[in-house]
Amino acid sequence: MNKDLSNLREKLQALLLAQRDKSARGNVADYIPALAEVDPNLMGAAIATIDGDFVGVGDYQHAFSIQSISKVFGLVMAMNRVGDALWQRVNMEPSGQPFNSIIQLEWEKGIPRNPVINAGAILISDVLVSHYSASKLAFISFLRTIANDEDIHIDHDVFQSELAHGNRNAALAYLMKSFNNIEAEVPDVLEHYFTQCSVTMNCQQLAQSLLFLANKGVNPLNNTAVCTRKEAHRVNAILSTSGMYDQSGEFAFSVGLPAKSGVGGGIVAIVPNFGVICAWSPPLNSFGNSVVGMNFIAGLAEELGLSIY
Amino acid sequence: MNKDLSNLREKLQALLLAQRDKSARGNVADYIPALAEVDPNLMGAAIATIDGDFVGVGDYQHAFSIQSISKVFGLVMAMNRVGDALWQRVNMEPSGQPFNSIIQLEWEKGIPRNPVINAGAILISDVLVSHYSASKLAFISFLRTIANDEDIHIDHDVFQSELAHGNRNAALAYLMKSFNNIEAEVPDVLEHYFTQCSVTMNCQQLAQSLLFLANKGVNPLNNTAVCTRKEAHRVNAILSTSGMYDQSGEFAFSVGLPAKSGVGGGIVAIVPNFGVICAWSPPLNSFGNSVVGMNFIAGLAEELGLSIY
Amino acid sequence: MNKDLSNLREKLQALLLAQRDKSARGNVADYIPALAEVDPNLMGAAIATIDGDFVGVGDYQHAFSIQSISKVFGLVMAMNRVGDALWQRVNMEPSGQPFNSIIQLEWEKGIPRNPVINAGAILISDVLVSHYSASKLAFISFLRTIANDEDIHIDHDVFQSELAHGNRNAALAYLMKSFNNIEAEVPDVLEHYFTQCSVTMNCQQLAQSLLFLANKGVNPLNNTAVCTRKEAHRVNAILSTSGMYDQSGEFAFSVGLPAKSGVGGGIVAIVPNFGVICAWSPPLNSFGNSVVGMNFIAGLAEELGLSIY
Amino acid sequence: MNKDLSNLREKLQALLLAQRDKSARGNVADYIPALAEVDPNLMGAAIATIDGDFVGVGDYQHAFSIQSISKVFGLVMAMNRVGDALWQRVNMEPSGQPFNSIIQLEWEKGIPRNPVINAGAILISDVLVSHYSASKLAFISFLRTIANDEDIHIDHDVFQSELAHGNRNAALAYLMKSFNNIEAEVPDVLEHYFTQCSVTMNCQQLAQSLLFLANKGVNPLNNTAVCTRKEAHRVNAILSTSGMYDQSGEFAFSVGLPAKSGVGGGIVAIVPNFGVICAWSPPLNSFGNSVVGMNFIAGLAEELGLSIY
Repeated sequence: MNKDLSNLREKLQALLLAQRDKSARGNVADYIPALAEVDPNLMGAAIATIDGDFVGVGDYQHAFSIQSISKVFGLVMAMNRVGDALWQRVNMEPSGQPFNSIIQLEWEKGIPRNPVINAGAILISDVLVSHYSASKLAFISFLRTIANDEDIHIDHDVFQSELAHGNRNAALAYLMKSFNNIEAEVPDVLEHYFTQCSVTMNCQQLAQSLLFLANKGVNPLNNTAVCTRKEAHRVNAILSTSGMYDQSGEFAFSVGLPAKSGVGGGIVAIVPNFGVICAWSPPLNSFGNSVVGMNFIAGLAEELGLSIY
Repeated sequence: MNKDLSNLREKLQALLLAQRDKSARGNVADYIPALAEVDPNLMGAAIATIDGDFVGVGDYQHAFSIQSISKVFGLVMAMNRVGDALWQRVNMEPSGQPFNSIIQLEWEKGIPRNPVINAGAILISDVLVSHYSASKLAFISFLRTIANDEDIHIDHDVFQSELAHGNRNAALAYLMKSFNNIEAEVPDVLEHYFTQCSVTMNCQQLAQSLLFLANKGVNPLNNTAVCTRKEAHRVNAILSTSGMYDQSGEFAFSVGLPAKSGVGGGIVAIVPNFGVICAWSPPLNSFGNSVVGMNFIAGLAEELGLSIY
Repeated sequence: MNKDLSNLREKLQALLLAQRDKSARGNVADYIPALAEVDPNLMGAAIATIDGDFVGVGDYQHAFSIQSISKVFGLVMAMNRVGDALWQRVNMEPSGQPFNSIIQLEWEKGIPRNPVINAGAILISDVLVSHYSASKLAFISFLRTIANDEDIHIDHDVFQSELAHGNRNAALAYLMKSFNNIEAEVPDVLEHYFTQCSVTMNCQQLAQSLLFLANKGVNPLNNTAVCTRKEAHRVNAILSTSGMYDQSGEFAFSVGLPAKSGVGGGIVAIVPNFGVICAWSPPLNSFGNSVVGMNFIAGLAEELGLSIY
Repeated sequence: MNKDLSNLREKLQALLLAQRDKSARGNVADYIPALAEVDPNLMGAAIATIDGDFVGVGDYQHAFSIQSISKVFGLVMAMNRVGDALWQRVNMEPSGQPFNSIIQLEWEKGIPRNPVINAGAILISDVLVSHYSASKLAFISFLRTIANDEDIHIDHDVFQSELAHGNRNAALAYLMKSFNNIEAEVPDVLEHYFTQCSVTMNCQQLAQSLLFLANKGVNPLNNTAVCTRKEAHRVNAILSTSGMYDQSGEFAFSVGLPAKSGVGGGIVAIVPNFGVICAWSPPLNSFGNSVVGMNFIAGLAEELGLSIY
């Protein structure tokens, strides 16, 4: 790595500005009204390092719907709570299928391919609902702790919208239930799942909250272990093979960092032993990944030589 | 990383001996007679570093059938030959399917998911057949050059056996041909493919031949560029998401290194900026990966802290 | 046809007795406790002709759970209610898949392959729920009318059991809902569906209630049109290609009659322009069809030359 | 049935003329040049009865490529040759998939769903190649005998075209071979298969050659048994559930006759105990069935009350 950090702010601003000038940027998620209304021209990015540096550019303090990025947090909570037993109920293989594939879930007899596709994250929600007396509160509380910021909330409009358009996720949940791989009641599981998808955070909060994954499990903001070193490796491994929907291979190929995206337009990328990048811009490509976010992170990784491969 | 190299030989020997004492080691590949006859008790391992160190233990100089490890070499040759145009004809996504899945190839309309599943490697063979006047000679010549060793050969018994049992691969090839994604005649493509699968190499040759992938594309044995730095990253990325058949996710999760295995019982693992590990033992688990090889590499990666994540 | 009806009772008794002596008869459905408790040694059969003849043998007056046979009744009610518009929402092709396949429903974007697989019957339930103010009462009332028998009821234990084990059907329903192919609320649709599956009838009631399908739509018991001649043809066509689960082709091949079976062990077979056969015995083969029922109907069809082909 | 045969010629001519006036008639098959060149405006129809009546209208004596209709003849020959053993190697279930689906063949482990999809007919070709010293001659000879007409030939241009564009069928054959369900050499099997697809016949020849299926196995032209009564029932059953590609259910639903179509634009329909209808017009709908042919046969079946259901 040649992580030359001089002029980091200038680099980030230049990269973001370059994106602002491009015309083709994809389409904002419109499967629920609450997401379709977001201003497509907003964009921000931030980088937080394990040594305590932070740089944010553009709308990096504008909160947005984290959507599938929430799967990373849920996964860490569930790993902490049930340990290796978790992997009896969910696999850790890339899926080679769309994020919401019910076909693969059927083939695999109700065992999701990994915890960051929808079926896997619903299963994780079941773990949290079953192991916490108040799983939604616990989730928010976990986020506020690791981000070291109390100003993290649920967007109730998004939550209601998700619930009203959640029939496909309900199908996934009931299918897993039919294979005895959901313990709690399906409506409770879905309520947790849609709640965690509906959290809003900004680029700064996301970058800082995930520093423990770049730092062997230890949150450098408060020097507290969030998970073990081994668990941090494992989460990064899963994000590397499966974090960017059905574009995960291409992201590894062209960028080379563990990452997770959400249809709210956010992308987080972990740079082991260095820090976390977060980029946000609502318009998505056909895989559900933010076009600007992908380009920004690819450019930064190229410039700083961040590929882990 | 805490790559403490003192007593490296002792560490390797201890790890290999530990494997020798375990009883359950899987079954030798028996889909072709020539492979089924290999002594299941042979086992060897080697590590070569980009700084010129080399340690081999056990039967590390015993040549074995490299089988799917040949896909790495073919991929590098094709990338060198046709550049980015290659990725119009083969994808770079993990497959989430068995290595010889014809279902996925049909879904994807004849575009293989990645170059290290069978369909992808057959497509790569088509590229080589179409772009070299004598692709089989070119392949062997390439191996001898990068391994810096002339003593690398084709096992003609294995080749004949592969050809006689290659109907499924023929089906994959004709299906791609039906989608106009094979240019040469199918029998010629298959002949090349089975030839490269039938090469025999030993642990030392394999570890040394792939050092360029750990060294930004440059072969440290002779300080010659085999591919660009970017191409080396890309190959490692593909091996990380897809190199260990349908156990690739688990290997990333538990070991954390780009790797490729073959049903001859060999596994190579790339440690970027450090070196290459090769382990060999014929008995395979249900995914087609060498049981001893997996355990050996996992143990070494754990002990030396080699995970890239 | 050589429908020699002399000694019909003797023929039926001989055929049923022949079955009683066979040892291997499959297994009673055990996916819900209420079905698993049925005495596997009960067996009965009946034949009703459009000319008013009726013969019953064995336990032909013992009521049993009609299960999927209810799909025939629901289909006729829905055809009567919405006419050809029904076929915008459900296809009429054989499925080539298990009766509860969620994979095919996904491929076909929420349009069930035909109305007698589970997804199709759930869709029909949605039609009935949406078009009747009290669809469950209407269903029972329809049965009592066409069977000319008030003694037809719902088994509430079976209903509760179905509801408690209905997660897979819930998955099918929510998946269709996600494709906007379910209009009512899913729990209401499932309640109707499980209700109609939980009806109990005996061989006599089933044979007589379906006479209209053998008689160009007209119920000969009371000379009332239940559906048009064309609709009767259509229902028989669907039963011929799809009525016996994934053994429909074999049933057409070896018996040659439109038929529908249920996991309660009942089978009804329509003999156009002649009558209806009903056979019942709880133990099922691996396809979900009553072993004794299949053998009995095959034997009778052979003896009387009933094949429509 | 109300088979009023008075004015049969007038009925046929009226029905064909009605089709001639319709504008939207689909597209001529263009996957091989030899078929794409056929005049789309040709159309003919014929009806032959088991009592010896025959009526032909339009271009009923114009020979065309029988394509998949050849599967009926091959099936009968193979049934005659190997008896019930045939059904160990090919199933008899409708497929619910396109005629050339390789996915289903993989699922079913090399056992084709039925003998009238491509994989099934290739398997039948293997039976013929393996059981006749000169299977292609035997095939033509069989056709000439049952049609009672020596003027039946192979179109060698079509044959060469099929062979040159047959990669998908080669994939199906090699996949079956990999499951040990092809005995002969694949190129020999394909040569037979493409030969039988390349036969040309006219409406009269087709209608007359298949009369045995409407007549309990006996060819009324020469009063010779072509197959047993049971075998005739079985073939008709297979044609009823699977003869019209992925429109078989709809054809049963709306017409109600065992039938087989080919992409040359021909359709034959069997009317048990009555006769055979053949209609021909090259333009096809999206399922591969002749638009005019479907409409013509549907109209005639409606008018004469021919549905078997």
